[in-house]
Amino acid sequence: MKHVLFVIAMEAEAEPFLTHMSLTKQAHSHKGLTMQMYQGIYKETLKVSVVVNGKCPRFGVDNVGTNAATLSTYLAVNTLDPDLIVNAGTAGGFKGKGAEIGDVFLATKLKHHDRRIPIPGFTEYGHGDHDAIETPGLAKHLGCKIGVVTTSNSLDHTDMDDTIMSQHDASVKDMEAAAIAWVAEQTQKALIAVKVVTDIVDGDRATHEEFLENLGTAAKSLQNVLPQIVDFVHGKKLAEL
Amino acid sequence: MKHVLFVIAMEAEAEPFLTHMSLTKQAHSHKGLTMQMYQGIYKETLKVSVVVNGKCPRFGVDNVGTNAATLSTYLAVNTLDPDLIVNAGTAGGFKGKGAEIGDVFLATKLKHHDRRIPIPGFTEYGHGDHDAIETPGLAKHLGCKIGVVTTSNSLDHTDMDDTIMSQHDASVKDMEAAAIAWVAEQTQKALIAVKVVTDIVDGDRATHEEFLENLGTAAKSLQNVLPQIVDFVHGKKLAEL
Repeated sequence: MKHVLFVIAMEAEAEPFLTHMSLTKQAHSHKGLTMQMYQGIYKETLKVSVVVNGKCPRFGVDNVGTNAATLSTYLAVNTLDPDLIVNAGTAGGFKGKGAEIGDVFLATKLKHHDRRIPIPGFTEYGHGDHDAIETPGLAKHLGCKIGVVTTSNSLDHTDMDDTIMSQHDASVKDMEAAAIAWVAEQTQKALIAVKVVTDIVDGDRATHEEFLENLGTAAKSLQNVLPQIVDFVHGKKLAEL
Repeated sequence: MKHVLFVIAMEAEAEPFLTHMSLTKQAHSHKGLTMQMYQGIYKETLKVSVVVNGKCPRFGVDNVGTNAATLSTYLAVNTLDPDLIVNAGTAGGFKGKGAEIGDVFLATKLKHHDRRIPIPGFTEYGHGDHDAIETPGLAKHLGCKIGVVTTSNSLDHTDMDDTIMSQHDASVKDMEAAAIAWVAEQTQKALIAVKVVTDIVDGDRATHEEFLENLGTAAKSLQNVLPQIVDFVHGKKLAEL
């Protein structure tokens, strides 16, 4: 393992990690894009890169969701050729699957729940059902939970979303992971996804209230867990994770 | 106008146009991607490029939806630097907005209806609300209808989708246009979107049945209208469209 690429959607999610690891901002040549690239070297041998989607110049908010994530991930992978992609961020958790606020989850599978295309072949393509690599050692090291991550472009969820997320056996719901996993699959790169729970999907509070309330705490939790991941993968092969 | 780039999601939508214009397949250097590029010269002075998303190697279906479209469009724009992007394809039409099967629509605005993020700023970012350039001359030349195109990653539509599509004042519903328009906005490129109606969204038939039934006819209609667009833009400035 010589190079690990972190893909993080929001600046607030990335910032504590960037500071903690003393990563420095790099120029990139992708015209017209607000994505940002940060890099550094861990213990002299592991290159650590972080790509963040940047802010929408029109609305001043982070470029969340699958489209910007697809683009940032592909451009970073194609430029850097990393050995491992780590998608890290906040997510909703299902209390029915044992999730609590602040929990850390590693993805077993990554699926979409907002791509309904009722034509044979297209249905399966829409759901995605991408693999993360198996990381039993890392899960044990972090003392975290594992489960299916399901992705949509909405922070909220409809009854239809609930039905499909349940069919997906999802533990965690986010807005980027399955799209990043699609890029990993296309480019034949190993992927892991680590998600910190900011809100309870099957609880009684509105997602956006809980999300905003817990975003800061979750970013600190990411700051705690992401350096542990860097330290654990350092010096190891993919099969040893 | 020296170079026009067509972005077409499905091979079945693109094939008649590629054949009619005698465009030839080009190599591209985008590792791991199934996107395909075709090019030719019209009347010795207008370069015509077409990017198609290609087939998913796992499921053997076209890479429809916003993620592949975002990636193909950005990579093509960044490589080719065209003067105009034309997104062309099939779509659902609203009979409440005067749409009938086979109708050709030019987009006035491009919005998303499946990106619900109830946080100020993020809400507007989610909906997108991107501009197409004004093309009154082209609309008159084609004798076509105009209206708002709304995009999601699903072929079907839920009650929530219906509510948002109605708020968007949508005439047409597709699976790529708003994402392509986002790339056009980021890269400051002029965009038009032309959509042929394969099915009626607010009718009583299931979308996928009507879509499959009318896909061939719609592709022929695209074959008829796309060369007319090439001929009309040839020798003109953007402001003359």
